[in-house]
Amino acid sequence: MTTHSEAALSPRAERLRIRAGAFAGQTAGLAPGFVQGNIAILPADYATEFLRFCQANPKPCPLLAVGEPGDPFLPGLGEEIDIRSDVPRYRIFRNGVLESEPADITSVWRDDLVTFVIGCSFSFEEALIADGIVLRHVQMKRNVAMYRTNLPCRPAGRFSGTMVVSMRPLKAADAIRAVQITSRFPNVHGAPVHLGRPDVIGIHDLATPDFGEAVPIEADEMPVFWACGVTPQVAIANAKPPLAITHLGGHMLITDLINSRLAML
Amino acid sequence: MTTHSEAALSPRAERLRIRAGAFAGQTAGLAPGFVQGNIAILPADYATEFLRFCQANPKPCPLLAVGEPGDPFLPGLGEEIDIRSDVPRYRIFRNGVLESEPADITSVWRDDLVTFVIGCSFSFEEALIADGIVLRHVQMKRNVAMYRTNLPCRPAGRFSGTMVVSMRPLKAADAIRAVQITSRFPNVHGAPVHLGRPDVIGIHDLATPDFGEAVPIEADEMPVFWACGVTPQVAIANAKPPLAITHLGGHMLITDLINSRLAML
Repeated sequence: MTTHSEAALSPRAERLRIRAGAFAGQTAGLAPGFVQGNIAILPADYATEFLRFCQANPKPCPLLAVGEPGDPFLPGLGEEIDIRSDVPRYRIFRNGVLESEPADITSVWRDDLVTFVIGCSFSFEEALIADGIVLRHVQMKRNVAMYRTNLPCRPAGRFSGTMVVSMRPLKAADAIRAVQITSRFPNVHGAPVHLGRPDVIGIHDLATPDFGEAVPIEADEMPVFWACGVTPQVAIANAKPPLAITHLGGHMLITDLINSRLAML
Repeated sequence: MTTHSEAALSPRAERLRIRAGAFAGQTAGLAPGFVQGNIAILPADYATEFLRFCQANPKPCPLLAVGEPGDPFLPGLGEEIDIRSDVPRYRIFRNGVLESEPADITSVWRDDLVTFVIGCSFSFEEALIADGIVLRHVQMKRNVAMYRTNLPCRPAGRFSGTMVVSMRPLKAADAIRAVQITSRFPNVHGAPVHLGRPDVIGIHDLATPDFGEAVPIEADEMPVFWACGVTPQVAIANAKPPLAITHLGGHMLITDLINSRLAML
């Protein structure tokens, strides 16, 4: 099922619907006002290095929570969250190779797995929209366009790679305002990492994103680039751990945290 | 005399030197750490409209202080400031026509004159430089390049006009950082009003600024534009009051206010 509910449900109600198998679609627009997170689950043997990778690269990998080894619950993020069942769809990788995209990972859970929840641009997009800024991909009901760049992440142990960025076309005045607004949200990627010429960061064709969907850029707009939560997935793909579990793009964990409470000011 | 002192003097010591006629040059770099201001002095008959103009256009016209009619002192800005003698060089306009550029206006002071002190980009430039951002015009010891734009100011009574902006070329990452830093200083023009393509705001040749001096823009840089304190001078020129007195460009009032205390956060 990929249909969205008509009326907004609470985060917990959405999770229970997902847990029950009644919803396995993308989560954009669900439980408006509440924080959604990118998921990475790794064996403890890799978890410390990945934690260091996130700490060293806070713009693409802002950590909202780290679970205890073997513990599928994340009490800091919401009531009774069970990471084994509360994400609509997962991706399971073994030695860097995609194995399956199940809607539940209870059967593969192990007592050495550590869950990482990483901030997601949905939170700052809500703040931009509330400020009157029109986001084209939202307007066109597309996934945001994402691109690999030549911006290196700081490596940590076996984790390394270049940054992936999301791009939103904005008029200059809106780009300036967007810098102000997103700077208040360091836990969900914060301020842009680049704006203007894409070639400066190694992007050579905005019409062919590496992830998500392209959107048109008008003559009086510039592309504005934010660090993206796909970056840690690339670093995990490079590290090729024996087991790694992530969410499927757009199929996020819905938490009980309030978006506006992520604002630092 | 236009030579600068070797060692930094206090704001008051600089003002006393200026008052005594021992210095009549540009004030950039003097009394580092202290706020400098643009000056406009108008008859009371025009002052209320100009005050409304500043209120309606806070980015180009951020008011640091407004004097009492006929009172040349500005106790809110510093010890014993006498606006008739403490600015290195003035410009006197009658009916919109430049009459003279004296170093003292005591002889033309009247009991209906109202002084306006308007924030100046020197304050935020100091914050940018302290953050490690290189400003080309400072590096090249030039006046910042300023341009007339097609951005309309909100008119108030007889005061109207388009915005004048200052331009600093920056790499994208520094431009983003500069938005963050200058957003903290709304009393000295605040965040940029535009960045990227100059034609969007009616600037057709960056090599020929309307005020100040051009600087080169490197291939990986973009022009970043801030509202400029020359804007109120243009509005005054449009209003053509029987008497108007301003500072000569770059020859600012040095106050006792501390730059970093202008930061709103």
